[in-house]
Amino acid sequence: MNVSFSKIARQNVTISEITSFHIGGDTVELSNQPRLMMRVAGEGMAREVDLNGSYVTGQLYANHVKLAAPRHAEPVMFWHGGAMTGVTWETTPDGRPGWQWLFLQAGYDVIVTDAVERGRASWSPFPQIYDTGPVFRTKEEAWSMYRVGARSSYAAREPYQGQRFPVSAFDALAAQLVPRWTTHDDMTLDAYQALLEKVGPVHLVAHSQGGWFALNMVRRVPHLVRSVVVIEPAGAPRLASEDVACMGDIPHLFIWGDFIDEVPSWKKYRAATDQYREVLAAAGKQTREMDLPVMGIRGNSHVPMMDDNSADIAALVVDWLAQNPGAAI
Amino acid sequence: MNVSFSKIARQNVTISEITSFHIGGDTVELSNQPRLMMRVAGEGMAREVDLNGSYVTGQLYANHVKLAAPRHAEPVMFWHGGAMTGVTWETTPDGRPGWQWLFLQAGYDVIVTDAVERGRASWSPFPQIYDTGPVFRTKEEAWSMYRVGARSSYAAREPYQGQRFPVSAFDALAAQLVPRWTTHDDMTLDAYQALLEKVGPVHLVAHSQGGWFALNMVRRVPHLVRSVVVIEPAGAPRLASEDVACMGDIPHLFIWGDFIDEVPSWKKYRAATDQYREVLAAAGKQTREMDLPVMGIRGNSHVPMMDDNSADIAALVVDWLAQNPGAAI
Repeated sequence: MNVSFSKIARQNVTISEITSFHIGGDTVELSNQPRLMMRVAGEGMAREVDLNGSYVTGQLYANHVKLAAPRHAEPVMFWHGGAMTGVTWETTPDGRPGWQWLFLQAGYDVIVTDAVERGRASWSPFPQIYDTGPVFRTKEEAWSMYRVGARSSYAAREPYQGQRFPVSAFDALAAQLVPRWTTHDDMTLDAYQALLEKVGPVHLVAHSQGGWFALNMVRRVPHLVRSVVVIEPAGAPRLASEDVACMGDIPHLFIWGDFIDEVPSWKKYRAATDQYREVLAAAGKQTREMDLPVMGIRGNSHVPMMDDNSADIAALVVDWLAQNPGAAI
Repeated sequence: MNVSFSKIARQNVTISEITSFHIGGDTVELSNQPRLMMRVAGEGMAREVDLNGSYVTGQLYANHVKLAAPRHAEPVMFWHGGAMTGVTWETTPDGRPGWQWLFLQAGYDVIVTDAVERGRASWSPFPQIYDTGPVFRTKEEAWSMYRVGARSSYAAREPYQGQRFPVSAFDALAAQLVPRWTTHDDMTLDAYQALLEKVGPVHLVAHSQGGWFALNMVRRVPHLVRSVVVIEPAGAPRLASEDVACMGDIPHLFIWGDFIDEVPSWKKYRAATDQYREVLAAAGKQTREMDLPVMGIRGNSHVPMMDDNSADIAALVVDWLAQNPGAAI
């Protein structure tokens, strides 16, 4: 099949269920916490706040849209990047259909997640439960890290030449950004593993930090990942040829946008990911790289699922999935 | 119409669009913030964290599911309660269809929101942008405040006699709980008003703290609220008869569960809401109270949309909506 979402993105979709749930994590109990006096009602009166008690921590949120007549054996599961949530995969910042909708159109059940401590997954008191505080992404950092334009060009909102991110909607992207903790990789991987054990196997489509998690996950539960698509992963685990043996042969697709040479950290993440891909390829595993500029598709930012050609990039993924064993019923 | 969701809840639903967006809030800029050294990568090395820059703050998140063939002129918009998110209206903790799905089944487009600083709405650094820190709801507090059982009965998980909340799934409810700030009423109302101005008029269905927000909103934008359903509102504004004149005649439905006399704060919230309702009624406005135990429906907790008869309570709301002007196309 060769999808053209420009034709189908506005078709109706018949669904049998929209279901959501939290999974993973544990209950922790706080005791012997000092009672705090805090203003907790609008009227400005301080009242005692007691942190002592039990909390669920380390859980994630998943939203599963099921088609009445899916055309593929496994769902597509989306993992977002750092400072983001499952909103990444919903409507684009300028109001076009997001990848959640496009993959439903393509006949896949779709699972969208909010990673541990992001969005609807909730987060826990610090330093009482989390040991450190969160970090926050400014508009300025998003502008440069998502490669909309050079940091110095933020004030003037002058994007890179040929930029495909809808720059006039940049503030709608900034409104999606959430705080994140940077020392929770293990907790996050544990929750994602619990999710895969519940609903897997899946086709895993992961962005940025989510790509880093995905490339760490395929070795943990290879039987639960039918294929993996990493869109600009924020690095990859260092892979030795002896690691590859136990990985099975999970088809890997790597997608890269434009302007990577403009941002040193992206050059570094790209290099680490290339090493991972090359070790897989040398072992004869199924790998495919889509370097969009090399393919003649110029101007994509770090968030191609939001760029003006987001539907075309989705179609590249859908077509690649269709070639993989297990992708079709 | 008299809905029986037990018959239809498993039918397919044909949708034309799932769209989401953030709305409301402003950009604030932090400057002259000291740079912090923080461990931000998994490897344990501290790096400099710079909070200086621009942030969107005060926005909320909305998710709008549109039917291919809605049977009503206005959508239903759901507002969740304190320490909760839009997940309130999705799948019940024990895995049954939530009100989002049931109201789609009933022919309404459905808008689910995450209030300012909850869930996917994101939250801002404190004390740099928010002046105070958040409060957290423990399992023990949820057990008693949601009237599953007496605080003293939490450890043994002994619910009130006849309890309809699915007690074996209590931890799934606890996993949904999020931190909240308690001094953000104005910011939250401003964002909700911006949302109503974008998508209104709507039928507003609001729970607990969301009910408090809803009863404060109807006076602000009466032309954007076709009807309002408040499920156990956490209080109501004090209404004087002269206030009623400018409120138009928005049909109000008030729903109360069981065991309210067991929890003093709920008796207080109930009394404030009764005063509001009685002033409306005395002025000849359309009000309806459903005191479920008085109607012979015993055992509902503070979260009837999650209780074992959640579909029956939804049907009561759907039937009431069907009687209101503007509810049907």
